[in-house]
Amino acid sequence: MRVGIAQIDPVVGGFEGNVRKILSAYENACAQKARVLLTPELGVCGYPTYDLIDRPEIFERNEKALKDLVHATLGKSCALIVGHVARNPSSKGRLAQNVVSVLQDGKVVFRQAKSLLPSYDVFDESRYFEPANQVELWDCDGVRVAIAICEDLWGKDPRYGHLYGSEPVSIYREKKAQMLFSISSSPYEWGKKGRRESLHRQITQDLGIPLVYVNQVGATDEVLFDGASFAMDQKGVVQTQLPDFEKAECVVSLPTATPSSVPTFVPHPSENPMDVLTQGLVCGIRSYFERTGFKKAVIGLSGGIDSALVAALAVQALGSENVFGIAMPSQYSSAHSLSDAEQLAKNLRMRFEVRPIKFSFSVLSREIQELSQGPLAPLALENLQARLRGIVLMTMANHDSSLVITTGNKSEIAMGYCTLYGDMAGALAPIGDLFKTRVYALARHINQIWNAPIPESTLTKAPSAELRPDQKDQDTLPSYESLDALLEEYLEKDTAIVEIEAKLPDFQKEGKGSVREILRKVEINEYKRRQAAPVLKVSPRAFGVGRRVPIAKKWDQ
Amino acid sequence: MRVGIAQIDPVVGGFEGNVRKILSAYENACAQKARVLLTPELGVCGYPTYDLIDRPEIFERNEKALKDLVHATLGKSCALIVGHVARNPSSKGRLAQNVVSVLQDGKVVFRQAKSLLPSYDVFDESRYFEPANQVELWDCDGVRVAIAICEDLWGKDPRYGHLYGSEPVSIYREKKAQMLFSISSSPYEWGKKGRRESLHRQITQDLGIPLVYVNQVGATDEVLFDGASFAMDQKGVVQTQLPDFEKAECVVSLPTATPSSVPTFVPHPSENPMDVLTQGLVCGIRSYFERTGFKKAVIGLSGGIDSALVAALAVQALGSENVFGIAMPSQYSSAHSLSDAEQLAKNLRMRFEVRPIKFSFSVLSREIQELSQGPLAPLALENLQARLRGIVLMTMANHDSSLVITTGNKSEIAMGYCTLYGDMAGALAPIGDLFKTRVYALARHINQIWNAPIPESTLTKAPSAELRPDQKDQDTLPSYESLDALLEEYLEKDTAIVEIEAKLPDFQKEGKGSVREILRKVEINEYKRRQAAPVLKVSPRAFGVGRRVPIAKKWDQ
Repeated sequence: MRVGIAQIDPVVGGFEGNVRKILSAYENACAQKARVLLTPELGVCGYPTYDLIDRPEIFERNEKALKDLVHATLGKSCALIVGHVARNPSSKGRLAQNVVSVLQDGKVVFRQAKSLLPSYDVFDESRYFEPANQVELWDCDGVRVAIAICEDLWGKDPRYGHLYGSEPVSIYREKKAQMLFSISSSPYEWGKKGRRESLHRQITQDLGIPLVYVNQVGATDEVLFDGASFAMDQKGVVQTQLPDFEKAECVVSLPTATPSSVPTFVPHPSENPMDVLTQGLVCGIRSYFERTGFKKAVIGLSGGIDSALVAALAVQALGSENVFGIAMPSQYSSAHSLSDAEQLAKNLRMRFEVRPIKFSFSVLSREIQELSQGPLAPLALENLQARLRGIVLMTMANHDSSLVITTGNKSEIAMGYCTLYGDMAGALAPIGDLFKTRVYALARHINQIWNAPIPESTLTKAPSAELRPDQKDQDTLPSYESLDALLEEYLEKDTAIVEIEAKLPDFQKEGKGSVREILRKVEINEYKRRQAAPVLKVSPRAFGVGRRVPIAKKWDQ
Repeated sequence: MRVGIAQIDPVVGGFEGNVRKILSAYENACAQKARVLLTPELGVCGYPTYDLIDRPEIFERNEKALKDLVHATLGKSCALIVGHVARNPSSKGRLAQNVVSVLQDGKVVFRQAKSLLPSYDVFDESRYFEPANQVELWDCDGVRVAIAICEDLWGKDPRYGHLYGSEPVSIYREKKAQMLFSISSSPYEWGKKGRRESLHRQITQDLGIPLVYVNQVGATDEVLFDGASFAMDQKGVVQTQLPDFEKAECVVSLPTATPSSVPTFVPHPSENPMDVLTQGLVCGIRSYFERTGFKKAVIGLSGGIDSALVAALAVQALGSENVFGIAMPSQYSSAHSLSDAEQLAKNLRMRFEVRPIKFSFSVLSREIQELSQGPLAPLALENLQARLRGIVLMTMANHDSSLVITTGNKSEIAMGYCTLYGDMAGALAPIGDLFKTRVYALARHINQIWNAPIPESTLTKAPSAELRPDQKDQDTLPSYESLDALLEEYLEKDTAIVEIEAKLPDFQKEGKGSVREILRKVEINEYKRRQAAPVLKVSPRAFGVGRRVPIAKKWDQ
């Protein structure tokens, strides 16, 4: 069977554009004599739709789009498989279902709703959708084809399997499926590609049937979709592998399986996850700008590693002519800060200006001091500098129809080492899900693959916020190696605190440097994160929509 | 049967404090010879716990707290009914359950998990909890008692009933329950009290058995809990009604029902919903400050209605000695702005200072103009003024360990008539869920009940942001009466756009003043709301955790 894969980038709510993208791929698939074309989960309406499901328009627009798609298949021998929302046919349960339809020769010949609805991390599907109450196969010229929607197959993953009562894969087996399709909108995270491939290989081998898997590319706010669609034969051997974070199409010929075929494990050649991470962040920045209608970015360049990395990524995503770097030195900035920022901008061929905040800082602090009737507290003065910089960047962005990109990393955001409305001001936080140690690793990687834009001294000097004389991050924080190990256990692995303490014995047992005090700091800074720019998600758990924690709590007792 | 009601204010994660509150009420109930004491849903751990459910500590701390509570019942004749989290006993499904336990004479004598898990609006319970797989009654001295957890009874509401397959109330009937308890953590919204009472009356009358309903008070971030616990006899007559938004305890004697009793509808005397709204906002401000450990607030006073209302509410919540008002006039501020702000502060007996931003605005705008190489765009200059005010407030707050309270209303926040990091800067948005027309109504109400703190001219002058000469809100917006009607249909009632257009014929059919263009504006301003301070929720749908909409979308096509 010749199966086409359309690794496209649907936009949430962009029905017309999404239909155009699907139809363009469909024409190509027809020209290549594909028997069927696969397109991503909810590709007609985009994913995730969130509460737009509550808008009556979504169903009308979806119906109209589907009609156009059905019409396009009239007289064609290639079936078109699309993911879309549909009204729940039952009066019981959620209003909507997440469904896949097979369109053929002007008709909808098969429809199947999603069975397993992920409701963890960034997913809220049981808020929106009613699960399938039965699972059927599609008969394609006598071949029994199972069509899964993303999570339907992840029920086989030990981390998620326990969540669900039913399990579509066993029904596919009972019904003697001969071919398996999966249409997905599966978010990227560091290292997930290998896990995704292993999981699907295991299912393929268990069932002894070939699998074609399609995933979307692009990003909706903080959620990145990496594509990386593939086809496997019944032994789990990858026949076709589409790229990460790029639109792509192909047609693959697959034999239908004889259910008795003997599974063999075939490892896939490894690739550098740093490359994929880089592509993901670039894709995330580009998608955000494209989908919100902006072209230009403004970034505050401190001479430090975070802003250097973000500038390099932004230049790659938007073009050097669209990225404007502004250095805003204060009396506490060191000379190398300015020269490093300047060198970076030169290397990246981006516009660069210097706007010292010294004078405006002295004006504002003097004026506000009249209210405080005495010298302002050190914290107030530190934040004032950061907020003046935020004002300069935002004013330039407003003037120039640009967006400010923020430069905070995950370690900083976790500890609250960042100023609300200051360095946190901006539309998007591209490295907000990268611990500081990974920021360094990615910066070094980028210097290897992109002709060393980041100055060596930026990579080697001790990190500092430079908000008071001779300040260094490590004056008040443990080493980033230790801190990041701790934060990863707590934030990404949900490890119990007593276990963290046992695992990381270098932390003090009590007081400021203890595990509990550091985690207390993480929790009391939740109010800052509630007002943070969307953080591109690249880890199992990022700050933002996938981590929901109350502010007004007593969790630190 | 003598039943005690403990309308307490549990704090999320505050196990020790919550246990103290429960035990204090339990001692009083024992002293009053209650047979049983009811405490709120998840009262042991607080509600909503959100993703803290993923922390292993929550179960340990819960077990420890429960042990202390069980111990306290040893030798007592009063049973203690508490809500808490428990590990799901099955290996299938979510890790946790939302349960109610009956503690009696040193033992847990009954346990029931919640059946219906709300997963809409601010609720995400199917993300966290596994529903009950069976419903049992508690045998209390031979009386069959059904114990519901909040939503278990809301399944009878036509708006939510369709969401659920099972239905605990019919099981209570089958099992011939003679008494019904409901332990709840039920958020306040405008007018909900009456609906809540009607719903519970209907269930009481249907079953022909008495009902005791307990609800918590206080607020977790944006979610307000109004208490208003009550007891009804088997005819639905309210025997006891506890106050709104205040801690309270009582013991009520109720006869167990003879299932044949004839239901009679008994209307409850109406009360002014404006009073309840006022109490709710005051409670929300007070809870946020108490639970985050702050005492003092800073508010920017513009002389306008929004900041006047917020200042009055803050003074009521925190005391006039803890609220600091700052007027920050610019060259565009009218004389009455300053005098109205001053009069308000005088009336409220709060500290008041004036800090003009004229000079710092001229310094900053001149400095930034060097970057823009020409006059700054009008929008950039407007936002710059708002951001300078934000800086002054935040610096004073940081200096003085205070929190800034924001003053934006729902109409403004919907339309994006607010500046990120400017007037949106702050910890809490008390009136962010009140349309402008309701802001006026509430201000007038407060002037009646609190000795007229808000100057008459503030109430009567035309609303203006005063960011450019002679600016008025109605230069670019429809009248607030029309706008609010439109926004309510769209945001709170999910009315289809074509229906809104038919319902509100006064809007232009096309162009800037049309329904579609206004709603397009609502959607493209989602990025601002993503970074907004938590909005105290008083409507069926507030901006914030209960309304999830992607930023990078094409919804306006």
